[in-house]
Amino acid sequence: MSKYEKIRQEAYAANMQLPKLGLVLFTFGNVSAADRNLGVFAIKPSGVPYEELSPENMVIVDFEGNTINGILRPSSDTKTHAVLYKNWKEISGIVHTHSTYATAWAQAQSSIPIQGTTHADHLTVDIPCAPPMSDEKIAGNYEYETGYQIIDHFKNLGLSYQEVEMVLVANHAPFTWGKTADKAVYNSAVLENIAQMAQLTQGINARAPKLKEALVKKHFERKHGPDSYYGQ
Amino acid sequence: MSKYEKIRQEAYAANMQLPKLGLVLFTFGNVSAADRNLGVFAIKPSGVPYEELSPENMVIVDFEGNTINGILRPSSDTKTHAVLYKNWKEISGIVHTHSTYATAWAQAQSSIPIQGTTHADHLTVDIPCAPPMSDEKIAGNYEYETGYQIIDHFKNLGLSYQEVEMVLVANHAPFTWGKTADKAVYNSAVLENIAQMAQLTQGINARAPKLKEALVKKHFERKHGPDSYYGQ
Amino acid sequence: MSKYEKIRQEAYAANMQLPKLGLVLFTFGNVSAADRNLGVFAIKPSGVPYEELSPENMVIVDFEGNTINGILRPSSDTKTHAVLYKNWKEISGIVHTHSTYATAWAQAQSSIPIQGTTHADHLTVDIPCAPPMSDEKIAGNYEYETGYQIIDHFKNLGLSYQEVEMVLVANHAPFTWGKTADKAVYNSAVLENIAQMAQLTQGINARAPKLKEALVKKHFERKHGPDSYYGQ
Amino acid sequence: MSKYEKIRQEAYAANMQLPKLGLVLFTFGNVSAADRNLGVFAIKPSGVPYEELSPENMVIVDFEGNTINGILRPSSDTKTHAVLYKNWKEISGIVHTHSTYATAWAQAQSSIPIQGTTHADHLTVDIPCAPPMSDEKIAGNYEYETGYQIIDHFKNLGLSYQEVEMVLVANHAPFTWGKTADKAVYNSAVLENIAQMAQLTQGINARAPKLKEALVKKHFERKHGPDSYYGQ
Repeated sequence: MSKYEKIRQEAYAANMQLPKLGLVLFTFGNVSAADRNLGVFAIKPSGVPYEELSPENMVIVDFEGNTINGILRPSSDTKTHAVLYKNWKEISGIVHTHSTYATAWAQAQSSIPIQGTTHADHLTVDIPCAPPMSDEKIAGNYEYETGYQIIDHFKNLGLSYQEVEMVLVANHAPFTWGKTADKAVYNSAVLENIAQMAQLTQGINARAPKLKEALVKKHFERKHGPDSYYGQ
Repeated sequence: MSKYEKIRQEAYAANMQLPKLGLVLFTFGNVSAADRNLGVFAIKPSGVPYEELSPENMVIVDFEGNTINGILRPSSDTKTHAVLYKNWKEISGIVHTHSTYATAWAQAQSSIPIQGTTHADHLTVDIPCAPPMSDEKIAGNYEYETGYQIIDHFKNLGLSYQEVEMVLVANHAPFTWGKTADKAVYNSAVLENIAQMAQLTQGINARAPKLKEALVKKHFERKHGPDSYYGQ
Repeated sequence: MSKYEKIRQEAYAANMQLPKLGLVLFTFGNVSAADRNLGVFAIKPSGVPYEELSPENMVIVDFEGNTINGILRPSSDTKTHAVLYKNWKEISGIVHTHSTYATAWAQAQSSIPIQGTTHADHLTVDIPCAPPMSDEKIAGNYEYETGYQIIDHFKNLGLSYQEVEMVLVANHAPFTWGKTADKAVYNSAVLENIAQMAQLTQGINARAPKLKEALVKKHFERKHGPDSYYGQ
Repeated sequence: MSKYEKIRQEAYAANMQLPKLGLVLFTFGNVSAADRNLGVFAIKPSGVPYEELSPENMVIVDFEGNTINGILRPSSDTKTHAVLYKNWKEISGIVHTHSTYATAWAQAQSSIPIQGTTHADHLTVDIPCAPPMSDEKIAGNYEYETGYQIIDHFKNLGLSYQEVEMVLVANHAPFTWGKTADKAVYNSAVLENIAQMAQLTQGINARAPKLKEALVKKHFERKHGPDSYYGQ
């Protein structure tokens, strides 16, 4: 058994969740799963339909973005994944989709305001939207710069990637991550759901206030931290 | 056969209806079924995926919120269920979801105006939205206080929990109830449908009037009370 | 074989189409199929879930609204069906639903403007919305009066029920009809689709003009009348 | 084996994709597949439900719109297909649907602004909306003129049909095309997705800017042209 078998299987299974959760049309999405010991990740091959995916055709790439193992070309977004893995040491799964509602917020160049406990169950701040990139970065090493656009935006806002596991990239679409590929997929589905609720909330009451701080704190602590009491 | 078998089966079957009706993403919902003679209710365990549920892993809890029987930790919303059962003697089923449209109205901190007979077939007033809780209550016994927030709002509006079997909790999401767990699930699906119609109605005509009183009365009486003639 | 077998089968099959087409939640809809020679129609029993329907439990009713054959109570909307059959001699199928988008327009008390060829393929005018009924009519023989509310609105607008096979009843929901129950179901699905498109069109461009007369005429004549060339 | 077997099979398979992709209600759509050597295309018969389609009942038509082979009458939109094939030599597949979101934009008589990379992955300009036709053209050879309405609009805007493979026809609905029928179906699904995202984006931020030129260029070149690196 190849030493890459585990992450290939993990990346494959996580990629196959995307169409089931209604998060992708055709091939508009990709998931990767990292092995921190080996310093590599397995990622969906570029442009291959979900029904033709298998654990074997996942591509193995290192954190510089070099293909290490695999016949097919990796996802065109591979360098964004590599940059995030290289800089954010505690994550081992990343998802990129063009899910409908989250992408609409990204196109509107707007962060998603925290207005309910569904949101607060997962993060305590607005879902950030990284600004459009400069023309130089776009014309240069685009996917690589996309990774740094996300990282720089987190630095500017003083956000922790371990507490906020999702971002919108303006005019583009969402990225999510987590300790595993499964958790990153979970975060993509949660983000899409929050994005839809926020869009509807705004339509019902354009002046709906943000969630009060006490409620943000309470709901987040129900699910996270030493005093959490959600789950088993 | 355990004396809890009946409500475990009932709670299990009712919980399994939620994903089928499109009312939950992942584990974002819970149903309980009460046995009034035994003074307990069966409720979904916290954070367990629907596909892993069984009648056996439903948790038995009394009306003070104490776990009586069961290995797993009960839903994090258990105390809200307990408070409602303790105070409202005629209900034996409660549902909590974060269904998309109803939650959007809750996030907008708005009651749902009665604008059509789909609404009037089920209740004669706007679907109430309990106001955000005080910081003290949130920081205190939160889920317990959520139950009283609902009960107090019904008292303030002069509503009967037997006539109005659904509520939004501002910034959070809906709760519904009924004489059985099945009826409470039915009410959750009806609420989501009414919430979607109301959101669309507002978009088409922001000044659409409420339903006239004669029509409210007529439609409610078709389905409820001594002269009802709906159903068999 | 009973002389009612044919319309019972027809009404049953047409009723079963409603959940498949996404037009009903629970039991919120009903279809009837008439036999003009016998002067009766078969209609869904009131409040019976779709999965429990059978040709046998369809109820046979005459055009005065009297039950002629059948054990169960007919749909609570039966008298509306009876009035329409009695007055409009050329129809043999009627459908009532609370489908989401069409009901939202009814709640908004607005006719649906003709803005595209999907609409013009089926009728040449706005989809009419009958006004709210008077309190006297509501308190009186409500379902019977609902039938006349529709008929009177068609008279007032100078519409032909043979050319316009659908209507919204303000604050309530749509009714559709046709030469067969199948055609009436088809019209319900078309109406829901047109209602959704019109709601979206209004959101994109609140001042979108109505379809020009030449295009209305052309599209309708492609599908209807002596020079039609749609279909086989 | 008939010389038309290949395009009949291709047109059949492509037509069957439409209901699976949620792009058609009943028979409101049609796909054709052309054989450039034979100078003909296979197209869906008019008004035949998808479940009754077979490769055998696809109709063979030449680029003047004359039926060459087949028992059934071809789609009522056949002449529009013929005109496009005749004038645009590099396409061999055409799709027409009334998909909900794209049709709403057509009814709003609005092109779809380019606001995100999902759009830029497929074309570098707004999705064009051909203006309403003159009354003379509508009353004349309507479907034939629809083809020229599209072609003239592309000429007026200086667009290449090889770079922009989709169009809205005002008050009507979308047409898409491509080198194969499969590619044209793909374009129809992509258009519907972009149309929905654009409608949502406008609702969130009515002043959302268009995509910056550098990003348009970058994303299009990732998928198209000599330096593309998307796919295998």
